[in-house]
Amino acid sequence: MSELEALRERLREFAAARDWEQYHSPKNLASALIVEAAELLEHFQWLTQQQSRALPPEKLREVEEEIADVLLYLVRLADLLGIDPIDAAHRKIARNEEKYPAHLVRGSADKR
Amino acid sequence: MSELEALRERLREFAAARDWEQYHSPKNLASALIVEAAELLEHFQWLTQQQSRALPPEKLREVEEEIADVLLYLVRLADLLGIDPIDAAHRKIARNEEKYPAHLVRGSADKR
Amino acid sequence: MSELEALRERLREFAAARDWEQYHSPKNLASALIVEAAELLEHFQWLTQQQSRALPPEKLREVEEEIADVLLYLVRLADLLGIDPIDAAHRKIARNEEKYPAHLVRGSADKR
Amino acid sequence: MSELEALRERLREFAAARDWEQYHSPKNLASALIVEAAELLEHFQWLTQQQSRALPPEKLREVEEEIADVLLYLVRLADLLGIDPIDAAHRKIARNEEKYPAHLVRGSADKR
Repeated sequence: MSELEALRERLREFAAARDWEQYHSPKNLASALIVEAAELLEHFQWLTQQQSRALPPEKLREVEEEIADVLLYLVRLADLLGIDPIDAAHRKIARNEEKYPAHLVRGSADKR
Repeated sequence: MSELEALRERLREFAAARDWEQYHSPKNLASALIVEAAELLEHFQWLTQQQSRALPPEKLREVEEEIADVLLYLVRLADLLGIDPIDAAHRKIARNEEKYPAHLVRGSADKR
Repeated sequence: MSELEALRERLREFAAARDWEQYHSPKNLASALIVEAAELLEHFQWLTQQQSRALPPEKLREVEEEIADVLLYLVRLADLLGIDPIDAAHRKIARNEEKYPAHLVRGSADKR
Repeated sequence: MSELEALRERLREFAAARDWEQYHSPKNLASALIVEAAELLEHFQWLTQQQSRALPPEKLREVEEEIADVLLYLVRLADLLGIDPIDAAHRKIARNEEKYPAHLVRGSADKR
């Protein structure tokens, strides 16, 4: 079992033990995911880009927890929809590699 | 190498080949991540919860692509911050298992 | 002075008195705005649509505060960019009235 | 009638003429609002703060349209909940004026 499959299983048991599957519609989970993505962004909103590259340890631990929350909702949502996120991600990078050929877009700020 | 590490490596090469590391500050990546999370949510915003559980195939493929985008930015952001998302996620579930004991919160709508 | 102009002036004074203009780049304000939009959405994320139409008074007061936060950042961002949000909104409705003729889209779930 | 009330009325008519009130639950509108907030943020996500203060005219017109979209969903949502956004905003600034006394927080990056 891969590492995302292990998370998926643990989340299934977590929801089942609490009878929370009823709340876990894809619609609700997509909302919960963006709420966590905002809690992640909140840590960076007033920082300079430089500061965002050098977070103090306490801040880093908080950011880590928000990254965890986003990943958990992402895995749960993908599970409900029958999507394999790793496969999907590799296919998406492959598309981006074609769409943005390195020799054409090198250093350009238009898309990255 | 685990599956997220493989994605991480592929994203490093992708950014390096295009000289895009300069744009990939954690601040910018956290913004890009929430923008993708919104594109994901957009597919569900006018659906009933019932409809969100039964997407037609074409819609599902679009949702899959947005899930991929969120995962890619999440992996890239975690990489820049030196965070292991899988470890962080398991620690977060463990905290939630303690915080929401199954026998106390069973079926409750207050938190899920 | 219109009601949004009055808010705009009050926000200018608020930022100037605290020397916070330095943080109020459009980039930062657009992040702050979406973070508040997420705090607004958070109140609704596990509710049914029915429940979201009948919030208890305490919840309604919290939602009201988040609506205020979104409006404040929107007014501040528009000010920094020299945009009149009311004019822009009327022009946008006009475009939508043309784009979605009532007799063609009546009751359709595709766009609303 | 104030300027936000005028928008509110125009949006009521717009929704009624298209029989779209059925989709306009507060839950759905809070999702639609954050999706527009993300389209706004997208314009800034790879810019430096400096660049975000000096948008080229074409970009500025696109940003203006996203600001309009956020305002429209905000007015519509507030209407459905019976909230007066202008009143709420003034009350929120008053709270912030107390919470962040100018002489204590002047120039501080902790909160702004």
